[in-house]
Parts: sequence; structure tokens; C-alpha cells
Amino acid sequence: MFEAAELGRTVSKSEFRDQAPQLRWELLQLQQRLRQAPFPVLVIVAGVDGAGKSEAVNLLNAWMDPRWIVTRSFAEPTEEERQRPEYWRYWRSLPRAGTLGLFLSTWYSAPLLERVYRKIGGADFEQRLQRILQFERLLANDGALILKFWMHLGKAAQKKRLKTLERSRLTRWRVTEQSWKHWRMYRKFVVAAEQAIRRTSTGQAPWHIVEGLDSNYRTLIVATRLRDAIRQRLDESSGKAGAAAAIPEEPNESGARPTRGARELLRRVARRRSILAQLDMKQSLAKKTFGVELETYQGRLNQLQRRAQQCGISTILVFEGWDAAGKGGAIRRLTAALDARSCQVLPIAAPSDEERAHHYLWRFWRHLSDAGRITIFDRSWYGRVLVERVEGLASPQQWLRAYNEINQFEEQLVEHGIVLVKYWMHITKEEQLRRFRLRKGSAYKRWKLTADDWRNRKKWAEYELAVNDMIERTSTRTAPWTLIEGNDKNFARIKVLRTACSRLQAGLKNR
Amino acid sequence: MFEAAELGRTVSKSEFRDQAPQLRWELLQLQQRLRQAPFPVLVIVAGVDGAGKSEAVNLLNAWMDPRWIVTRSFAEPTEEERQRPEYWRYWRSLPRAGTLGLFLSTWYSAPLLERVYRKIGGADFEQRLQRILQFERLLANDGALILKFWMHLGKAAQKKRLKTLERSRLTRWRVTEQSWKHWRMYRKFVVAAEQAIRRTSTGQAPWHIVEGLDSNYRTLIVATRLRDAIRQRLDESSGKAGAAAAIPEEPNESGARPTRGARELLRRVARRRSILAQLDMKQSLAKKTFGVELETYQGRLNQLQRRAQQCGISTILVFEGWDAAGKGGAIRRLTAALDARSCQVLPIAAPSDEERAHHYLWRFWRHLSDAGRITIFDRSWYGRVLVERVEGLASPQQWLRAYNEINQFEEQLVEHGIVLVKYWMHITKEEQLRRFRLRKGSAYKRWKLTADDWRNRKKWAEYELAVNDMIERTSTRTAPWTLIEGNDKNFARIKVLRTACSRLQAGLKNR
Repeated sequence: MFEAAELGRTVSKSEFRDQAPQLRWELLQLQQRLRQAPFPVLVIVAGVDGAGKSEAVNLLNAWMDPRWIVTRSFAEPTEEERQRPEYWRYWRSLPRAGTLGLFLSTWYSAPLLERVYRKIGGADFEQRLQRILQFERLLANDGALILKFWMHLGKAAQKKRLKTLERSRLTRWRVTEQSWKHWRMYRKFVVAAEQAIRRTSTGQAPWHIVEGLDSNYRTLIVATRLRDAIRQRLDESSGKAGAAAAIPEEPNESGARPTRGARELLRRVARRRSILAQLDMKQSLAKKTFGVELETYQGRLNQLQRRAQQCGISTILVFEGWDAAGKGGAIRRLTAALDARSCQVLPIAAPSDEERAHHYLWRFWRHLSDAGRITIFDRSWYGRVLVERVEGLASPQQWLRAYNEINQFEEQLVEHGIVLVKYWMHITKEEQLRRFRLRKGSAYKRWKLTADDWRNRKKWAEYELAVNDMIERTSTRTAPWTLIEGNDKNFARIKVLRTACSRLQAGLKNR
Repeated sequence: MFEAAELGRTVSKSEFRDQAPQLRWELLQLQQRLRQAPFPVLVIVAGVDGAGKSEAVNLLNAWMDPRWIVTRSFAEPTEEERQRPEYWRYWRSLPRAGTLGLFLSTWYSAPLLERVYRKIGGADFEQRLQRILQFERLLANDGALILKFWMHLGKAAQKKRLKTLERSRLTRWRVTEQSWKHWRMYRKFVVAAEQAIRRTSTGQAPWHIVEGLDSNYRTLIVATRLRDAIRQRLDESSGKAGAAAAIPEEPNESGARPTRGARELLRRVARRRSILAQLDMKQSLAKKTFGVELETYQGRLNQLQRRAQQCGISTILVFEGWDAAGKGGAIRRLTAALDARSCQVLPIAAPSDEERAHHYLWRFWRHLSDAGRITIFDRSWYGRVLVERVEGLASPQQWLRAYNEINQFEEQLVEHGIVLVKYWMHITKEEQLRRFRLRKGSAYKRWKLTADDWRNRKKWAEYELAVNDMIERTSTRTAPWTLIEGNDKNFARIKVLRTACSRLQAGLKNR
């Protein structure tokens, strides 16, 4: 879940200076419009120590008119607060309609800390998260606009950041013994945080995960998201049609740059430091090694699957990827190792009439096999957040909701003991072109290449963002994505096989 | 919560025959309109054995066109079902858009049974309920119209019903050893059911609690609610304005009676067998006994409150009731027994501007006292579902949502160790008139009587239904309502004091 926030995304000083004035001006304008609105805005800032939580809050206070902002940070409860139910202090701090509340160390802090320190068990943690859900739903139902930012840093980046803070006399006080203690417990925090974010990221109160490495980047992200959300809500409540689907850009007023700037810049940054861009696409495997490893892993897979069948452990392999990325070839190398009676491949095309008359997950639930079998999905439920998103077949509301729905679906699979492996088959844009041309030139491969393929290729950039979001939001500890560097087919096929083996082995061990 | 479903509500054969043909005809018409709709209807029938669950499902099948109905009852999972995640069988049975699903023994059965048999603990039970919430939310977000009926019988009524079934050779098979075993465990079932209903009654998928004693009554309730819900949704999605707020009645077609009939009849039945109508309003207390008991209970309350203060246990007393029902007098008898420094009375009037700019519960959260004190609310958060409902100050969506919000609020109070006592001060309509006239005639009481009082009195019947709903939905095991028979002031005041004492004593014992 946090992979997409450990990519080293930065915005240069000059890029930042280009965008900041316009953003500030827009936020101020929106704040004035907000004052007449019948709802409050609630911004919750949480995350890893040193990832810029308080900086973000300070900056918004500096950029906007502080008279209409309530800033609250909740430390250890006071004696007065302890004498009342836990949520009393949150309730009394809520911003009134027309104003903005910036909240640090909120209702998430205590449950997270108590979970990490093992003061509460998993079930109690879940119940605390449910109370959070209830609380936020109640506020959102009443009209509150809620934005939640999780400021993230990788473990190494956090260490570096704490060291930097320690070096300056002005910031040294911020790094305590506890900061380092928590750093050593990094993994526990991340596990609990992931669960909390997954559970409480709702359509009404979504989490935004922000990489906290670079202050320019995180500032622009927070400010842009806040601006867009407030503007969208104000436009909706003043009845501007279509505001929900496409957020209109303001014209170039006050001489500053047009707004498209900030959002466009962030998209550029996202693409130049995307999860996919991190992959080492040069990896390859010599033909000879490939032959040896193929035999090894196919043999191993066959044995593992026999054992899985005996234990009644089912496996689901999900394949997503670019056109011509080699899904078919990889799948054939898998099925070659398996007993056809214990394995099925399901190519997922456009839904049938019957399927369209149901929830989009219905057709995937239907295909769950009985115990001990392997099901391979050639494309899957992720179509909702890929093709349906990019092609506009699902509304933003629908595909934004889908991340959570998919996580819950997969959670049920894993809870039931199913081994779930999700592959993203990646190739570079150049490699795709090469393969398309090859197909075009080959009499027996030409049928594989359709007009759709060329059409999809034109939307590469949009798909890239969609893939990045998908991995960010659905690569969970229970159901992680495996990214396959697919420019070299041999390398890709072995990595697919090897991953299947190791995941199946782990699944057998857990049993 | 189930009090309102143990009142002996019946509909006579002739009343039923008057309404049934029109209802059937309307349901058939709506079913035809539904076939073109882009959403399915899901009716979940659960409840106490013998309360008419399968009868309700059979009847809807008989009244409507079974070609567009999917009826499913989920028994013990089969081997095939056990091999897949729990929800697989529910997913594959979901009705397609345009059709109606009637579901018996659904996803509620297993968690309830496992909880009652203590196979799972409280926290696990909560998690199962959360999964239900997720599932139903996912379906509702996708457009599904979900209605849930809980068919209820009191313990004595269930026994009678089981005996009746046993007497006939045709129905004897339905009563098994397990039926009686469950009857003996009645209380455990009711406790778990209450929790499940409270947790899963959402705006998107509300529960309807139906008294199952009389088949005519329960048939009309289920059919009417189903008709209204389908019609409302169809009207909404075909864009008929105002359909959500007031469900329009169909004109008298097909020669049958106008629809208003069935709903009006049910309102009449509800009023003639309401929770309030059950109260024995003749109860009174002689002046002499009153004097003795007043001294006893005031003394006891004083002692209990001293102890509570030492232990840091807070008490909240909520007073709701008819105008002139004697709230003020009862409150004065309480405060007379208490140290003014440890006690505050909060009269709740219309909200201030500041309060209006927040969630309606905000002002009540604000008033929570520090540990060890008594807070008396003279009117309360229940205004949302009483005056705001009746006067149209809150939309149906808002006040329907409020029951759950209030339950969650009170749950947090009780969890924190606060003793919460809720009084409904009841008087008959005649007694109110007598008191109004007395006030009018008395120089020093005249100020108490306002034009509002006379206006409210005209809406007695509407308030009566609102009070009934309020008690049905918010009288929970954690926070029950105490109904005070108030025609005799002495009796009422002593009952208020006695209840406060016993609840405070119980609260001290739990500590």
C-alpha cells in the first residue's frame, strides 16, 4: 500500500515557485466562498514521524486566513478529557459550518499506538476502527467535507530525516528517545497503519497517501487535493452540473498561472517517479538458464499443487498487464505444469447481459472453484479500476469505491485460506510497439492485434496513472501485487513461475 | 427494542379482506415497472421461530409473479459451499436487476447462532456484523434496494405458537427438539438479535421489526412496506420530484379501494396497540404514602450520589414527555435531593446559531460533565426524532438516520461508565387538556401555557407514532427507556426517583 509513497517524488524549487502563488490565491478565494457554505471542512493529517505532518498544517495556516481555521492537535488526554468518553474532545473541537478544521494526532492515534504496543488485540483494534468509521460517517452524512492525509516515509528515509532534524539546533528538540523507539518499531506501525487506512478509507472520507520526503511535493499535493475537494463540493452544492465528474479549471485570474499547472505538474512528477518507472526493465535470462529454471519451477509447481490439492488449498492467480505484455505466454507456462483437471483458465472479456445485470464482482464470485484447485484469471476484477476507469465506463464514484470493495473481496478469499497471487505484467512502451509490429508482420500472430490495442496504446499515460493508483490502493499485506519486468519473456515467465511456487509454499506452511 | 413488537397488534379478517386485493394489484403493477429498472430488490426475512417468516415469503410469492422472484433459504452450508468463502453462496444467489430476491436464513443466521451458542465472543460477533455491513453497503451502493424484516414474538407468544403448530398434524413437523431448545434460550437470542439489528440498521438497508402474532397484520406490514419502498425508488429513479419525502398515493384504479387504506389501517392498529396505550394510567399514590416514599427515595438518592461522586461515576437523566406531563415537577423532586454543586439541569430549547452550525449532537456532547456529576436534560437529543420529525424540521432521511446515531452516542456514554436514565413522561390526552385549562385559570401558572402547546396538542396522533418509533428503536439493553405513568403526579414523581435510585445502584455495583 505504501510502495507508491516511497518513490522519491520531488518538486524542484522553481517548479514550486511557479505554482505556489496561484494555489494560495485559489485557496483564499475558496475559503471566502466556503464561509457561506452550510458545511465544515475537516482535514485530518496523520502519518509517520518526520514526514511533514505539522509542516503541512502550518503551511495551510500560513496560506489561508487563520480566522476561519481551527487547528487542533490532540496529545495525551488531559484529566478533564479522561473524565468523559473518548470522543468528547473531538466533538468539542469540531469546526462549525463554513470553517476549516486542521486536526493532528486525531482519533487514529490512540488505537494505532495501543495496537502497536500490543495493549489491544486485533479484534479490539477492529472495533476501534469501526467507531472511527461511525464517527466519520455521522459527520459526512451531516454534510462535513472530510479529507485525510497520510504522510509517509520509508524506513530508511525516516532515519535520514530524523538524523537531519537532530543535526540542527533549531529542530533537535523534535527528535526524542521515543522517535527512535518508534523508528525501530517501524514495521509494526506500518502494518497497523495499513489496516487502519484500508478499513477507514471510504467514499465519504477517503485517505490520501502522500510521500513526505520532499516538502515542495507534499505541500503541492495537500494544497491541490484540498483545493479540488473544496471547489468540487462548493460547485455541487451551488448546483453546477457535472462538477463531480470533471473538476473545471478556473480561468487565469489575478495574473497568476492557470491552475492546470499544479495538477499537471503533479501528474508529471507521478509519472516520472511511478511504481512502474522504478522497475529494472533490463533484466533478462539467457535461453539456457531459462530452460533449466523452467524445468525446475514447473516441476516444483506440480508437486506443490498436488500437495495443495490434498490439503484442499485453492489458488487464484490474477494476470493484469499491458496489451502484448506476455500474459498468455506466462499462463501457458503455468498450465503446462499443472494437471488440467485441477486447473482452469478464465479469460475475462466484456461482461455478458446476465453479468451486467449484477454487481460487477458477481461474476468473479461465481467463478470461485471448489477446494484444492487453481484458477487463473486472464484479466480480472481490476478491470473496474483500469479499463472501466480510463474508458469512462465506470463513474469516478464507482471506481474510487471499487478499491475498497476489491480489498474486502480479496480479504475474504485470503481469510478462507485461498492463495492469491496478483501479477502485473509490465513492458515498456517501446517494447510494446516492437511486439505490435512483429505481430502485424506475422501471419499466425496477426489475429492477436486489434484496433483496440492501438487505441489503448494512445492512452498509455492514463493507464499508467491508473495502474499506479491500483497498486497503491490494492497492494496490501494480505494480497500484494507482484510486478513482472516483462521486456524479456524468459525472465518474466520464470519470475511468474517462481512467485507462484513461493506463494503456494507459504500458503501450505500456514496451513 | 422489541417492546413495540409485543403489543398484540392484530388486523381482523374483514379489515384484511378490505385491503388485500388493492395491495396485491399494486405489487403486481410495481413488479412490472421494476422489470425495466436497473436495480434489484432484496428482501431479507429473519426473526423468531414461529413468527411467520416463511409464511411472509410464501405469501409474496403467491401475490406477485414468481417468474421475477428468486426465493432462497440458506440452510447449513453444503460441502460445495464450505469449500468456498462464506459469502459465496449469497453472491451466487443475488437477484439480477429488475427482479426481486426473497431471502430466508441469510448471512445473519450463522453469526447469531454462533454467538448464542457462545462459539464466538463479542468482538468476533462484531466483526461478523461488520462484514454484513460491508456486504450490504456494497450492494446498496450499486443500486440494490434492500429491505430487512425482523419477525418478532414475545417469549410467551412464541411458546403458544409452537404449541399450536404441534397440535396440527399438518404443521407438527415444523416444531423440532431444537425449536424448544431455542425457546428456552430465548433471552440469549433476543440479546444477540438486538445487537445485530442495532448495528446493521442503516439508511441504505434498514430493519423493520414486525410483530408476528397475527398473520393478517404481519402480511399487511410486509406488503405495504415493500410496496412503498419499491414505488419510492422507482419514482426517484424516474425522476419524480418529492417522491422521497412524501410517498404519493395511487388513485383508485381497478375498482379496488384506494391505497391510503392499508397504510391508514396500519396506523390505526399501531395507535390502538401502541406502547403508550399499554400503560396503566390509573396508577396513583395516596398523599400520605407519597410523603413517606419521597423522603425515603430522596434520602437514598442523596447517599447514592455521594458514593457515585466518590467513584467518579457520572449520571445523565433525560426527560422527554408531553407538554404539561410533569417534567419540571419531577426534576425539582430530584434536584431537591442533590447537592447543587454536583448537579446541573439543562433545559434544551431551540438551538442557537452556533449550535445550528454544527452537527445536531454537538451541543449535547459539549454538555457532558466531568466525572461524578449528575446532568439532567429537560428535553434532549430526542428532539431530532420527535419535534423535528413531526414539524418537518428534519428530513425523513435525517431523522431515520438519527436513531442509529443516537444509539451510538448513548453506547459511548454507557461504555464510559455513565449511568444513563431516559424517562418518557406520559399523560393521557384528556389529562393534558385538564392541566392546560388549570394553567389558563391560574395567574401564576399561566405563563407556562403557550400557543405552541395548543398547536402541539393538535398533532397528538403524529407525536404518538413518533414516540412509539423512538422507543422501538432506541430502547436498547444498554440504554432502556423508562415510561412514567404521569396522570397522577405523586405516582410519577416517586417512580422517577425510584428508577434513578435503582439505576444508580446498579451502576455502582458494576464498578
